[in-house]
Amino acid sequence: MNAEIITIGDEILIGQIVDTNSAWMATELNAIGIKIVQITSISDDPEHLTEALDNARKRVDLVLMTGGLGPTNDDRTKDVLTRYFNSKLVSHAPTLEHIESMFKARGLKKIQLNADQALVPECCTVLSNQVGTAPGMWFNEGNVIFISMPGVPFEMKQLMTDEILPRLTAINKKGKIVHQTIQTIGIPESFLAQKLEKWEEALPEHIHLAYLPSPGLIRLRLSAFGDDEGLLSTEVNNQVEKLNKIIPDAIFGYGEVSISQVVGELLKSNNSMVAVAESCTGGMISHEITSVPGSSEWFKGAVIAYSNEIKEELLGVSSQTLEEHGAVSEQVVCQMAQGVRKIMNTEYGIATSGVAGPSGGSKEKPVGMVWIAVAGPVDTTVSVYNFANNRERNIIRASLTTLNMLRLMLKK
Amino acid sequence: MNAEIITIGDEILIGQIVDTNSAWMATELNAIGIKIVQITSISDDPEHLTEALDNARKRVDLVLMTGGLGPTNDDRTKDVLTRYFNSKLVSHAPTLEHIESMFKARGLKKIQLNADQALVPECCTVLSNQVGTAPGMWFNEGNVIFISMPGVPFEMKQLMTDEILPRLTAINKKGKIVHQTIQTIGIPESFLAQKLEKWEEALPEHIHLAYLPSPGLIRLRLSAFGDDEGLLSTEVNNQVEKLNKIIPDAIFGYGEVSISQVVGELLKSNNSMVAVAESCTGGMISHEITSVPGSSEWFKGAVIAYSNEIKEELLGVSSQTLEEHGAVSEQVVCQMAQGVRKIMNTEYGIATSGVAGPSGGSKEKPVGMVWIAVAGPVDTTVSVYNFANNRERNIIRASLTTLNMLRLMLKK
Repeated sequence: MNAEIITIGDEILIGQIVDTNSAWMATELNAIGIKIVQITSISDDPEHLTEALDNARKRVDLVLMTGGLGPTNDDRTKDVLTRYFNSKLVSHAPTLEHIESMFKARGLKKIQLNADQALVPECCTVLSNQVGTAPGMWFNEGNVIFISMPGVPFEMKQLMTDEILPRLTAINKKGKIVHQTIQTIGIPESFLAQKLEKWEEALPEHIHLAYLPSPGLIRLRLSAFGDDEGLLSTEVNNQVEKLNKIIPDAIFGYGEVSISQVVGELLKSNNSMVAVAESCTGGMISHEITSVPGSSEWFKGAVIAYSNEIKEELLGVSSQTLEEHGAVSEQVVCQMAQGVRKIMNTEYGIATSGVAGPSGGSKEKPVGMVWIAVAGPVDTTVSVYNFANNRERNIIRASLTTLNMLRLMLKK
Repeated sequence: MNAEIITIGDEILIGQIVDTNSAWMATELNAIGIKIVQITSISDDPEHLTEALDNARKRVDLVLMTGGLGPTNDDRTKDVLTRYFNSKLVSHAPTLEHIESMFKARGLKKIQLNADQALVPECCTVLSNQVGTAPGMWFNEGNVIFISMPGVPFEMKQLMTDEILPRLTAINKKGKIVHQTIQTIGIPESFLAQKLEKWEEALPEHIHLAYLPSPGLIRLRLSAFGDDEGLLSTEVNNQVEKLNKIIPDAIFGYGEVSISQVVGELLKSNNSMVAVAESCTGGMISHEITSVPGSSEWFKGAVIAYSNEIKEELLGVSSQTLEEHGAVSEQVVCQMAQGVRKIMNTEYGIATSGVAGPSGGSKEKPVGMVWIAVAGPVDTTVSVYNFANNRERNIIRASLTTLNMLRLMLKK
């Protein structure tokens, strides 16, 4: 079953709100094997909605609308649908009762605008909105289903969860989709594509691969389409296994996991803690770590050493080394990682020192050059990177790369 | 001028990412008087894109596309556009040079997939992408402008800001708009609306006010529409002056300035530096500060004290105070601010200690409760807040509030 989502109202079009409803609906519909082929955001203009409905029914067998059902004059969806399906508005007794009881509970007097919310096109199936006044509406027209819901997120979610998804699951028995997201780090997109070229070409036709890059990371998503969910899962798992043999070190997790979460799990299973010394990343590594709930179990703290004075006095970096090699150097970053490990009394210490930009670069040490060190109970690993990007990106890429170096040491 | 945004790629349709690009673009286009009449999200399917382009050109005179320009096989936008405009792919020398220099700077070898990014339809104007490999493309076809950009948010934003918005502003000349953004902090939206009610009601009809809230901050945007740009500017400035009398402390800047930038300017003009001690904010304050280029002039460093041990040993918080009052307390946060000011030898020290959540809350110290202290040369100010939000929001709101408390002390 293919679907289109139509959101109605100006808020999205003028950029006042971000459309989070559609992502939520898409996830839920995907989970029951319904594929979204288009999301369309339009204004409250009746002609535009009519046109959008005409276009959608050519493409899909399910049209989900949100918005335009409020009590005020700028909400026109119900009128448009009544005309579109050649119906007429009638009062729906259970809805009217529900509205009256809602107003009574809040100690408010109902006005005519509220009573009008109980008017629905005669031809629709009314879907009960337990948390608001505007009911959902379900229309069967030829082979296409049209569903209209309020745009208020929690009202839409209640209607989807209690009324719509169960009905759609019953109707949509055939056609399943199985997704798996594979999180990778450390290989740039074009190089990854080259490494995976042969494997990708050999994928069966009903399994698709998508690259989803974000700064410092690339998520790969496999989507398998077919009838037998169990079989599809097996096939996807087999492909993930093959992938794992091609890029074993680059894969750090599956699904919506972050690199900090993975590092945290590894530290916990190692009964170890980490401390952080940040120069050019300026707090970003600590922020990434502490975004994980419960990270105090494995993260003791950090020193953000934005001046040489702090590197010397708090982290114990030698002033001679700083003078000889400069702050952005292999020697200094190693002393920072070892120093923070020592002063915070942890098993692991990680450190960064580089040129975030936009200024401060030189020929030998250009903007984007970052030294990273990981000090552990056995040894210290150190690497240099040239991220060559803008400040924001250099910081995020250096931070994720540092966490990845710690991950690789912990995996050994 | 009316516009449609078309986003290309599966990520939005399967609900994996929320489409924040469109809201950003809509806000920016609105600001130069371009109205978005539809946002359409479609997959990478070439036929579907062709259909979407056919439909869009009937409705609007500007079509903005994002996505589908990556180096991998699932990216098809460029091929579709080449066919759609009856053109052919040719190599664009400046883009190829730019790609080569990007790879060189990162010490990587360019492969064929990267070189192919420099192929563009012969009929388009190439828009330079300074922060990525895929250039933007501008097509004039009859009376309609078609623009294609990468979907990666910061690449899209760079292209919009540097290449597209200036050109569109020049084309869309009739009718002037003057905008001014006023940045506020410290007053929640509903209270701000109440304070500004009378002023807003008295605004002339051609000046509009928009509230643009984000976690911890609210931007107010005044937009004046008319023919005489000079006159509009004067009118807007007069309104801003009135506003400043109503909420003098809440306004921290104008335009796209961050609170860290404002704090940095105040510190520099005071010849002072700041040091940070973070517990519940976990590095976010330091990250906000170091996002500002050149912040090393006024930021010496930070201690992220995620365990009591670090609070005692590095910051000098008394173990007796920790035991008596707990880490989340007025006494501890004051000692943290004073301690970090002392060990880093700065004029100002700021500190946070609270319950970020989701767990760790109690009846006396619920999730979202955060103590904040600012220690200066003269005295220490301390406040407690109940942000009562999720972890991510509690962290960002506590961080911005801390920077604002420092701003208010510096302003005195």
